Amino acid sequence: MPATASSHEPYELYYWPSIPGRGELVRLALEDSDTPYVDVAREPHGMAALQKLLRGGAAPRPFAPPFLKYGELVLAQTAAILYWLGPRVGLVGSSEAERAHAHQHQLTIADLIDEAHDVHHPIASSLYYDDQKPEAARRAADFVKERLPKYFAYFEDALVANGGGRLVGSAISYADLSLVHLHEGLTYAFPNAMDRLVSRIPHVCALADTVRARSRLAAYLASPRRLPFDERGIFRHYPELDP
Amino acid sequence: MPATASSHEPYELYYWPSIPGRGELVRLALEDSDTPYVDVAREPHGMAALQKLLRGGAAPRPFAPPFLKYGELVLAQTAAILYWLGPRVGLVGSSEAERAHAHQHQLTIADLIDEAHDVHHPIASSLYYDDQKPEAARRAADFVKERLPKYFAYFEDALVANGGGRLVGSAISYADLSLVHLHEGLTYAFPNAMDRLVSRIPHVCALADTVRARSRLAAYLASPRRLPFDERGIFRHYPELDP
Repeated sequence: MPATASSHEPYELYYWPSIPGRGELVRLALEDSDTPYVDVAREPHGMAALQKLLRGGAAPRPFAPPFLKYGELVLAQTAAILYWLGPRVGLVGSSEAERAHAHQHQLTIADLIDEAHDVHHPIASSLYYDDQKPEAARRAADFVKERLPKYFAYFEDALVANGGGRLVGSAISYADLSLVHLHEGLTYAFPNAMDRLVSRIPHVCALADTVRARSRLAAYLASPRRLPFDERGIFRHYPELDP
Repeated sequence: MPATASSHEPYELYYWPSIPGRGELVRLALEDSDTPYVDVAREPHGMAALQKLLRGGAAPRPFAPPFLKYGELVLAQTAAILYWLGPRVGLVGSSEAERAHAHQHQLTIADLIDEAHDVHHPIASSLYYDDQKPEAARRAADFVKERLPKYFAYFEDALVANGGGRLVGSAISYADLSLVHLHEGLTYAFPNAMDRLVSRIPHVCALADTVRARSRLAAYLASPRRLPFDERGIFRHYPELDP
């Protein structure tokens, strides 16, 4: 739920304004829980505010976006933000074991996100994709053959082991939202590889349908606040990497 | 502090028995805090126990080692383990902000560990280094020129911003132990690149001296429980990658 920059709502999300990226995982939790927040870098002068905090307006300063500001607290690292935010917005169970396991899943999701990024940037983030295409093609071949099936078999198993519908506990957690986003991003980037997987991950697909049908999330996904995937972000569709 | 496999001590660490790897970050916290634990896979029949839990003896099963077992709880992902373990072994402050920021640092340390691994494995973990040497050379050039200085400038700044001696709060936290291990591993792998950095990171180096001099940690580091770095682990010394 958006708040205006002039409001006194407490949550401020800082992330690059033109890509969904890792910031989207925090945004989904805020939107699904109807939590008022300011998406700072998409407001006027917001990028200057983001850059200021990156240069050291808080201790410890963030290494990179996303980061969340709440009063005096500035917290970076997507999984750390979600661990902190989850209980406050009702997106994780109350037991310590549930919180630890949602966190465990979030970090495994983060690992696959990192690997998905490095498929198109296996040599250096500072270079363009065009400067590392042969290496990307080699990495993509392994990614779609080995890594993608291994991770999704794992998440499918995790859903089944927990009764079929959720990663942890009995209610949707932030880890479920992140898994659905990961599934969506990889389906955008590697439609052929994901099509070959789909029959083996029915519970992941059912979770995606359930999550996207949640009323607040459906409204968000249909709004201009939702940024599309494109070839500047983490999940990129290069047909030559998905034969 | 080691416990015998037949004892009833609560903590069981599961990690590959022949490399320090990511398991070492958990081991350092257990050793420094004098916490009794069983290093399961280094005990007789321990690898079978590790493999059994990887196959699904717990829900959610771990995607990969390390994982920690404590009674019924089985928890994977290094940063999730340390977040959970830190308060129990006195290696993080008591305020929520300190815990969140130690966690933030741990995840940034984990990012650099992942990048250090991918220098020698830029294409696929399933291939040998020898099968990806040209790509590794390209990635290493960027890593030592851009990434290593950027990350260590960040950690140096974080120490200075917090008064100079610790990443978070006033006492040594698990994140400090992990940073020192990261510094040590990278000094093993990239001695020339780290030698060029050393004058710019005096607080990181001082923290390393302080941590290694802690009596329980010094005893551990001198013991056979401490596994050496070699070219099977995350931090590998290939002279051609560190000109």
